[in-house]
Amino acid sequence: MEISRYPSKLLEEAVEVFAGLPGIGKKTALRLVLFLLRQDKDVVEHFGQTILRLKNEIRYCKSCNNISDKEICDICANPHRDHSLVCVVENPQDVMAVENTGQYHGIYHVLGGVISPLDGIGPDDLVLHPLEEKIKRGEVKEVILALSTTMEGDTTNFYLYKKFRDYPVKITTLARGVSIGGELEYTDEVTLGRSIANRTPFKDVFKL
Amino acid sequence: MEISRYPSKLLEEAVEVFAGLPGIGKKTALRLVLFLLRQDKDVVEHFGQTILRLKNEIRYCKSCNNISDKEICDICANPHRDHSLVCVVENPQDVMAVENTGQYHGIYHVLGGVISPLDGIGPDDLVLHPLEEKIKRGEVKEVILALSTTMEGDTTNFYLYKKFRDYPVKITTLARGVSIGGELEYTDEVTLGRSIANRTPFKDVFKL
Repeated sequence: MEISRYPSKLLEEAVEVFAGLPGIGKKTALRLVLFLLRQDKDVVEHFGQTILRLKNEIRYCKSCNNISDKEICDICANPHRDHSLVCVVENPQDVMAVENTGQYHGIYHVLGGVISPLDGIGPDDLVLHPLEEKIKRGEVKEVILALSTTMEGDTTNFYLYKKFRDYPVKITTLARGVSIGGELEYTDEVTLGRSIANRTPFKDVFKL
Repeated sequence: MEISRYPSKLLEEAVEVFAGLPGIGKKTALRLVLFLLRQDKDVVEHFGQTILRLKNEIRYCKSCNNISDKEICDICANPHRDHSLVCVVENPQDVMAVENTGQYHGIYHVLGGVISPLDGIGPDDLVLHPLEEKIKRGEVKEVILALSTTMEGDTTNFYLYKKFRDYPVKITTLARGVSIGGELEYTDEVTLGRSIANRTPFKDVFKL
């Protein structure tokens, strides 16, 4: 169904704002708005207020640029983490994803995006300064580039590699290969080809 | 990925409110919140304000209970519509869907829900009063019950039928049968069975 006429201007406006969110079309937006209208007044009020507070009150860690309630986030403030190991990611979700592995004990640096000329995002739009300072001060032994394996991610990887390669810092990136638990026949050929070229000694993988 | 730890209390709160919307899980909610954080301040402000206005300012037509900016909605206020023909629907989306057919020139009555004992929705939770009054005043010649063909929709259909059958009003419901443009082999058997039982003279369908 195409939505041609809304019974109310305010309803239409509310649908427009929800439909401005990624992955939400007009029909879903209308469903969400009508859902909200059926809720109690304080629920809707809380929703609106939370969104208003979001942009005004949220802060970014001065050290790693991750979202935080404090000036320095819990990870950067933790003396038990290895501050000489920095994992560079695109956004806060990525930090949560790596944290959930339970395998990483260094700190992070959140770029806030990747270089994407089509979207008008250049190197100057990324937050790099605090990481650069740490590297210049010689505090970092290893930088792990953990960006998406997309064109934009790889462009950013190369940009960062060029920027930091003259400093005495080891630059690594995530291992690329077939997913664990993945069926070989469903693995794309680029990944599969690269996995064969970069094959690993069996006993290294299983720590024999 | 399971989200176990958010880097900020406010972020978590914002994710919770979005995840309270139907069809939106925590991961999508997080994506939406981080999207909002990347937008300009006035965009986010407009979003929050629109939601706050929604519950406070939206009004319901006194005549048909559809959402409206006015006391009486445009459809009910239109003298060219047939006010003796009332199409009873569950919600405002249904009004838009019927309006989009361009085939209907009566007025509507929006129940605001259907009877659903499992969800704790009984007949008293539906808005019926204005329709009942119109029928009692003899203003309505025909009521079209246009509810979903679900258990809840049919329960509500029967309830309304019983309530109004003693008034001098014709009670009809939407024709049920195979979809137009639908492949016969993909039609469910209940619909197909009923379409055969309620078969229509060929010349009636094509107006020969």
